Amino acid sequence: MTADAWPALDGLVYGGDYNPEQWPREVWDEDVRLMREAGVNLVSVGIFSWAMLEPKEGLYDFAWMDDLLDLLHAHGISADLGTPSVSPPAWFFDAYPDARVTTKDGTVMGFGSRGMASHASPEYRAAIERMAGELAQRYGSHPAVVLWHVHNEYGVPVAEDFGPRAVASWHRWLQERYSTLEGLNSAWGTAFWGQRYDDWEHVVAPAATPTIANPAMRLDWARFTDDQLRECFRIERDAIRAHATQPITTNFMAHQSWNTDLWKWAQEVDVVADDHYLWSPDEDAHIGLALSADLTRSVAGGAPWMLLEHSTSAVNWQGRNIAKRPGEMRRNALTHLGRGADAIMFFQWRASRSGAEKFHSAMVPHAGTDSRVFREVVELGAHLKDAAEVQGSRVHADVAVLYDWESLWAQDLEWRPSDDLQFRERMRAYYERLWRDGVTVDFAHPEHDLSRYRLVVAPASYLLTASAGRNLTRYVENGGTLLVSAFSGIVDEHDAVHEGGFGAPLKDALGVTVEEFLPLREGESCTVDLDGTALPADVWSEHMRLAGADARGTFRDGPAAGMPAITRHSHGAGHGWYVGTRLSAAALAGVMPAIYADAGVETAAQAEDLEVVIRRGDAHDFVIAVNHGAADAELEISGTDLLTGAAIDGTLELVGGGVAVVRTARQGGGHG
Amino acid sequence: MTADAWPALDGLVYGGDYNPEQWPREVWDEDVRLMREAGVNLVSVGIFSWAMLEPKEGLYDFAWMDDLLDLLHAHGISADLGTPSVSPPAWFFDAYPDARVTTKDGTVMGFGSRGMASHASPEYRAAIERMAGELAQRYGSHPAVVLWHVHNEYGVPVAEDFGPRAVASWHRWLQERYSTLEGLNSAWGTAFWGQRYDDWEHVVAPAATPTIANPAMRLDWARFTDDQLRECFRIERDAIRAHATQPITTNFMAHQSWNTDLWKWAQEVDVVADDHYLWSPDEDAHIGLALSADLTRSVAGGAPWMLLEHSTSAVNWQGRNIAKRPGEMRRNALTHLGRGADAIMFFQWRASRSGAEKFHSAMVPHAGTDSRVFREVVELGAHLKDAAEVQGSRVHADVAVLYDWESLWAQDLEWRPSDDLQFRERMRAYYERLWRDGVTVDFAHPEHDLSRYRLVVAPASYLLTASAGRNLTRYVENGGTLLVSAFSGIVDEHDAVHEGGFGAPLKDALGVTVEEFLPLREGESCTVDLDGTALPADVWSEHMRLAGADARGTFRDGPAAGMPAITRHSHGAGHGWYVGTRLSAAALAGVMPAIYADAGVETAAQAEDLEVVIRRGDAHDFVIAVNHGAADAELEISGTDLLTGAAIDGTLELVGGGVAVVRTARQGGGHG
Amino acid sequence: MTADAWPALDGLVYGGDYNPEQWPREVWDEDVRLMREAGVNLVSVGIFSWAMLEPKEGLYDFAWMDDLLDLLHAHGISADLGTPSVSPPAWFFDAYPDARVTTKDGTVMGFGSRGMASHASPEYRAAIERMAGELAQRYGSHPAVVLWHVHNEYGVPVAEDFGPRAVASWHRWLQERYSTLEGLNSAWGTAFWGQRYDDWEHVVAPAATPTIANPAMRLDWARFTDDQLRECFRIERDAIRAHATQPITTNFMAHQSWNTDLWKWAQEVDVVADDHYLWSPDEDAHIGLALSADLTRSVAGGAPWMLLEHSTSAVNWQGRNIAKRPGEMRRNALTHLGRGADAIMFFQWRASRSGAEKFHSAMVPHAGTDSRVFREVVELGAHLKDAAEVQGSRVHADVAVLYDWESLWAQDLEWRPSDDLQFRERMRAYYERLWRDGVTVDFAHPEHDLSRYRLVVAPASYLLTASAGRNLTRYVENGGTLLVSAFSGIVDEHDAVHEGGFGAPLKDALGVTVEEFLPLREGESCTVDLDGTALPADVWSEHMRLAGADARGTFRDGPAAGMPAITRHSHGAGHGWYVGTRLSAAALAGVMPAIYADAGVETAAQAEDLEVVIRRGDAHDFVIAVNHGAADAELEISGTDLLTGAAIDGTLELVGGGVAVVRTARQGGGHG
Repeated sequence: MTADAWPALDGLVYGGDYNPEQWPREVWDEDVRLMREAGVNLVSVGIFSWAMLEPKEGLYDFAWMDDLLDLLHAHGISADLGTPSVSPPAWFFDAYPDARVTTKDGTVMGFGSRGMASHASPEYRAAIERMAGELAQRYGSHPAVVLWHVHNEYGVPVAEDFGPRAVASWHRWLQERYSTLEGLNSAWGTAFWGQRYDDWEHVVAPAATPTIANPAMRLDWARFTDDQLRECFRIERDAIRAHATQPITTNFMAHQSWNTDLWKWAQEVDVVADDHYLWSPDEDAHIGLALSADLTRSVAGGAPWMLLEHSTSAVNWQGRNIAKRPGEMRRNALTHLGRGADAIMFFQWRASRSGAEKFHSAMVPHAGTDSRVFREVVELGAHLKDAAEVQGSRVHADVAVLYDWESLWAQDLEWRPSDDLQFRERMRAYYERLWRDGVTVDFAHPEHDLSRYRLVVAPASYLLTASAGRNLTRYVENGGTLLVSAFSGIVDEHDAVHEGGFGAPLKDALGVTVEEFLPLREGESCTVDLDGTALPADVWSEHMRLAGADARGTFRDGPAAGMPAITRHSHGAGHGWYVGTRLSAAALAGVMPAIYADAGVETAAQAEDLEVVIRRGDAHDFVIAVNHGAADAELEISGTDLLTGAAIDGTLELVGGGVAVVRTARQGGGHG
Repeated sequence: MTADAWPALDGLVYGGDYNPEQWPREVWDEDVRLMREAGVNLVSVGIFSWAMLEPKEGLYDFAWMDDLLDLLHAHGISADLGTPSVSPPAWFFDAYPDARVTTKDGTVMGFGSRGMASHASPEYRAAIERMAGELAQRYGSHPAVVLWHVHNEYGVPVAEDFGPRAVASWHRWLQERYSTLEGLNSAWGTAFWGQRYDDWEHVVAPAATPTIANPAMRLDWARFTDDQLRECFRIERDAIRAHATQPITTNFMAHQSWNTDLWKWAQEVDVVADDHYLWSPDEDAHIGLALSADLTRSVAGGAPWMLLEHSTSAVNWQGRNIAKRPGEMRRNALTHLGRGADAIMFFQWRASRSGAEKFHSAMVPHAGTDSRVFREVVELGAHLKDAAEVQGSRVHADVAVLYDWESLWAQDLEWRPSDDLQFRERMRAYYERLWRDGVTVDFAHPEHDLSRYRLVVAPASYLLTASAGRNLTRYVENGGTLLVSAFSGIVDEHDAVHEGGFGAPLKDALGVTVEEFLPLREGESCTVDLDGTALPADVWSEHMRLAGADARGTFRDGPAAGMPAITRHSHGAGHGWYVGTRLSAAALAGVMPAIYADAGVETAAQAEDLEVVIRRGDAHDFVIAVNHGAADAELEISGTDLLTGAAIDGTLELVGGGVAVVRTARQGGGHG
Repeated sequence: MTADAWPALDGLVYGGDYNPEQWPREVWDEDVRLMREAGVNLVSVGIFSWAMLEPKEGLYDFAWMDDLLDLLHAHGISADLGTPSVSPPAWFFDAYPDARVTTKDGTVMGFGSRGMASHASPEYRAAIERMAGELAQRYGSHPAVVLWHVHNEYGVPVAEDFGPRAVASWHRWLQERYSTLEGLNSAWGTAFWGQRYDDWEHVVAPAATPTIANPAMRLDWARFTDDQLRECFRIERDAIRAHATQPITTNFMAHQSWNTDLWKWAQEVDVVADDHYLWSPDEDAHIGLALSADLTRSVAGGAPWMLLEHSTSAVNWQGRNIAKRPGEMRRNALTHLGRGADAIMFFQWRASRSGAEKFHSAMVPHAGTDSRVFREVVELGAHLKDAAEVQGSRVHADVAVLYDWESLWAQDLEWRPSDDLQFRERMRAYYERLWRDGVTVDFAHPEHDLSRYRLVVAPASYLLTASAGRNLTRYVENGGTLLVSAFSGIVDEHDAVHEGGFGAPLKDALGVTVEEFLPLREGESCTVDLDGTALPADVWSEHMRLAGADARGTFRDGPAAGMPAITRHSHGAGHGWYVGTRLSAAALAGVMPAIYADAGVETAAQAEDLEVVIRRGDAHDFVIAVNHGAADAELEISGTDLLTGAAIDGTLELVGGGVAVVRTARQGGGHG
């Protein structure tokens, strides 16, 4: 299965989650009227409706859903029909209490919030299969339904279950993975701390233990949990497919959910869909948004994808829920569009009066339609209509950033050399440097074919298999430029240190290995000397051993004073760069130019705050420009701004906070 | 029942908790001798004595209590006789393990600390009824007993129970409240996240859940818990009343306990009693003390009340237990007296050598009677004798501050727009401003008749019912001045956002509504321009919509830059003021003068640190003056200082840290 | 039993933990070759090998251990043979699930980490007895085995168990301790909060309670837990002794484990052994190391002891695992040697590729033998050979520091006057002052005979029995100098405040008692005036009452302004000093000279960073000098540097970071 189907809709998709069950019937009529006013053409329905659709076990009530879908269809609005498996009803948990999730500490989590059930429960699996089948049978040919939406945000709020049903699944999963106990004992290194198993039934889950549990077990447990969630997805997907032909998806949370390996998930869906929310403490949260969008497009293999949820303004679940400023929603939406989203949707259509998320923003806020938010919602709908021809065009990137959920899982386990060196932080810092330099990137898995990229960046590849190491080495040999950050190439797929020591799989590509880690104390910093410039660094230094590479930067102080910090190695037709410390996005600005030069990557001419992404269509290129700064900015370009219809002759003037979608001549190159 | 009875004692009441069971019999004789030396006329006994009174189930031992009460009586000391229901014995929990409290996470809390039992346990309820009855039968006509003291500090250390007995009570409580499941589903907004119930038995308690539980359920759970505790109180009270005629009380913890709605509790007791402890991190903890005292008097309907516990010096349960400085105990006691307490009592008479609270101060400290503390205890006893005629006089206030425990419960739930905007913090900031301005206040419930107040202040009225909104609107219409702080009038009694949007119930009174909340990031601040003055603000700003009001202050910067921050609205014969941000007590000094002017409230002439409260007696006024500053202060007044007997002719000179109780001519006005 | 046996080995002992079960057999041969290269003569084996030795219950596999011990012996390397009781196999917990440890909150901690079992499990006790016996029978006369190593680091990662088996043991333990319930009720002060017991079976463990549990119960629970662990040790020790004659030990964690009273443990072992790890946040962690070494020697009664584990470089379980700098391992090892360790061993020989501690350093690091660490390991092995004659010499100290685990347990309970006054912090501050002054100390229990010391320092003697008070008073009477820090002499062995008030047991010795504690707020500081010098202080002040002492320092400000802060008392032939606040090690420099003068203690002439300790042999003294500074330092001494063979004539020049072991003429005095 490949994720390149698309719901049968004309133009770009616009809409949001719609929960009419929270409102009296008369509000529905107002809703569809307002949706049309806003240009909405798709709404997601039914996601939390199990208790409405099956109020008692086996007793179905589809009348209200019939009514709803007919109403939508009558007004030309299509439906993304959700299966309600994320929230089984109260009766379900009463009848099947073992389907509740057990935490690591043995607490059983009850009903009353989002009702997440255990992926391991046979009763849950049977129930979701039945419900998905019922829905597909009834609505598989309803003209309103153009897309199926299975479950909701797999992996949040909980993914892991430590109950006895899950442990039984775990035993089966391990037997499939390892065949023999000898295999498991060897993979997990159970000789350490006397953890050797002699019977499959004795194998525990990594629940509460006196001190930290076996890390290889924990890494497998993460894989197992992810696999189980995906099994649940497949159950529902296949039950729908038996009766329906529309594309089937589920909403990912790229870079914001821990538990799902989206490289694998993207293989299972017909079209990739993502939810994204700004992280309030981050004043440059739009850069995290761009990262998430590029990651989503990348797992989709470059195909257009759907932004199924973002927010019109504040969310409700953060410590301080920062409202979007005027124009910010439009900038966010356009960034998603620019990075490949052909659907721009929100949680949610109308703000809930009750419940846990009543303070979450919506397309129709509590203040009603005479409000800044609703006016901007209408304006954005119009923009998307004006930009309809962007649909289907694709983003091209010369640079790949390596992203592997298994490495994230492994690096985030306990007892690493420094708690301060974190996968996501490094990912963001390197991404931010590239973003500020105007370099568009794809994300890639370390075992992917990377030959089409000029530059490959590995900000956090702690877990790197030997075959991935060979892949990266071949990439360099064949002329690629590889940039690797500290604490990469450390362990194999079992979280075991590579034979040959730290960094062994990359020794040929980088010309270095690491004799010893020299992390810094909390709050300490050090300085790297790079061609006479002092770069501030912190958290990490190391005792590097050159094995062919040239030291380009040197630690001026700190525990590694006098040792190499940044190296460059010529290998085959390419180059391997290595940064053995933690540099901020700002400090990386001192390092990247030489690397871009090796790779032949060009950086952008425009101001740093002016985000520019190009989507390549069959006949034209579409340049999406988003000015995140307060000052006006200029971009050298000719064409037509689809949002205003204005002709651009050489220079686009973009006011502070403004956006443009410029149809321009094709620059060459094909689909990514 | 109204809380205006009083124990049969002459003059002001003075004493403390007395736990002779911790000491050999010979110490008792020394105790009563020292009590007389200190002027003690009432001690609280028996509060933790269950295991002594009923060492085995059904086997009573009253001999020691007979001895104790006789001894006290022989020396002219009266007893506040406690029922020991707060601490059932070890045998009770061994016999009835289900009576132990279960936490949210399912942990069963055992014996060995204060032994709190589940309010829902039928065995517990039966046992406390029996014990209270036994005590009342035996001591109902003992001449020493002038007051009954049921239980101890309801709501601490634990109130909620999540065990199966509590869930069964919960089902009954909900059926009484809502009659139909439709009513419950609607009130709780169970359409959100698919939480609809089809059977009462399926309704859960808000125990551990995958993400946050339904907030309306949690609010009802707080009401339920409070109701259950009150049911337990009534069981004991009625069992005592069957055999005894003395007043019955229990000790509240106004503004320091979360779980008890004291407006309701005050209806159940014969006389209101309170415990208060200084909060060490607060260098102005005497202001919090005054707040607590005013709140206690207010729930008592203005009647004199009993301070059943405070401390002679440090407590023992805070992170750093700050001892009171010389004179501080006297100042604290006089503030309580000034704000309506006719009984000044301590935890505890003699410091415990053992147990959890051995480092809590006492009237007789570990250092013995040759100590600063005991000397001050004796001095205070003499003061209270000298000031005996204050007894029965009442405090009058022209200003009311709205205080509603339901709003506290609702606002403190998770997922609010900003974690930094807190009920108690706002309550204290507004109260502190009024305190520093020398303005005496009552507290009031938003649905009370407010017509006798010139000014009503609502620092934190997040939950405000439609009828409360109408009450406040009428108050303004009739000429009152209303001051409302941000995030008020947001939800109804079910934590559902009001139709009409944020602030809808106050729209007429204030002439504004709020389109959107614009909270600030952690640590951020902004500035409000008020008639050219810059007021520092933080945490909160908002997008306000004027609906008749005038903008008096404007956000100069931050997310609401240029929008109104402080407004004044003329409505009917009165005025509604609104402050849409968080201002400190200091910053509020810039706002209040115009509001006082609208309301016709006069502020004090004396120095800010000189606390002055007037109690109005039948023939005289009594001015209680407490100088919290280090510098000497002056107060314009004539009369007699009851503590020294000195005549004051126009000016009272009060040394730094000093106190006075001046009998002066009546200023007019009646009881509050 | 006294801890003065020694394994049958020539010269100083050198080696580490060896876990060959983690490696293919061919690596073993390389290992023994490298061990010889490094000068290793002892390795600890078998500690985590239960699952290898008994793969199924009752089925033993000793072949690999035979092979290993034969291989070691063939290469002249001896074995410290561990019993694997710290890590029962998976089958054990599957067969005996009740042997798992239950936490305070009721969580049962499962297999999968270090597999700690409950000390109270009869099945566990039977199993470890059987296993120890099997090992001893088989290897009791194996020529490689020179030492038995029971269990591993008793008390970590968990010591306490709250399961039903432990509660049953607790009841038995209490009946032995108290005989009658009256005794228990009195000791625990159960009259407080109504905790009186009428039946042994009703006595609870201090598990989860609504508020804090009875502190005397908690103190007894700590004693009980420690006793139970020691019982488990004795079971294994005696099972070994039945078949083997080699010395038996277990590895302590002096000053780093909470749960074991090493004064008692040292009575049980044949030779004292310790593990020590640097605490990374501490930039002067070598001072903590010296403290730990002195404490270990002291519990060993001055006899040579074994450092069974330390690290060659970083550990793996701290937040930031700081690698040792070049030369630091040698300095650490020499400090241990200087303070009495005749065995210098590491965790671990070869770095593990897998498991929880793969990032822990080792003698053979992941980088292999061509590494700084391995080169330093070889160098250190050579040093120890060169310094072989140091073996058996003893350290002499004129100063004792009081250290009582019972006082640590008691002081660390909740609800003390200030959370900021901590046993370990005070212990370190006073020790550090003495260390910086070049004063070598022993540690002693407050009830020990102290007559041989010139000065006794009590940094943290919160719990001090009346008999210990008499002991210290006698010590002063007989001419000793006693220095006591604040919050000492407060409670007796039942955590009950002494009759007579705070400090009563030391009133005669110090000439002061304490009327009231006056702790400071968080972050506050105050100043002590000492002969015109201002000493900065914080956390603590108090209202002291002079009872014969002279005030030498006075609080200049803070809550005790004007009151005595530091006092000196002449009592009998000696002097008692008291410091009633918290002074840093730096501030103590202002206080100590007068105390040293009273005691006749001489401080060192050399630079503060130059650590010098003298070990007295039968014929010579050995001066171990460790330069912790970066600058070169000088020491006045004559003799021969055993590490270089160089003759020292009057002045030893030691480069920054350097070490020396100088054989010099005896200075007089005998074994300590």
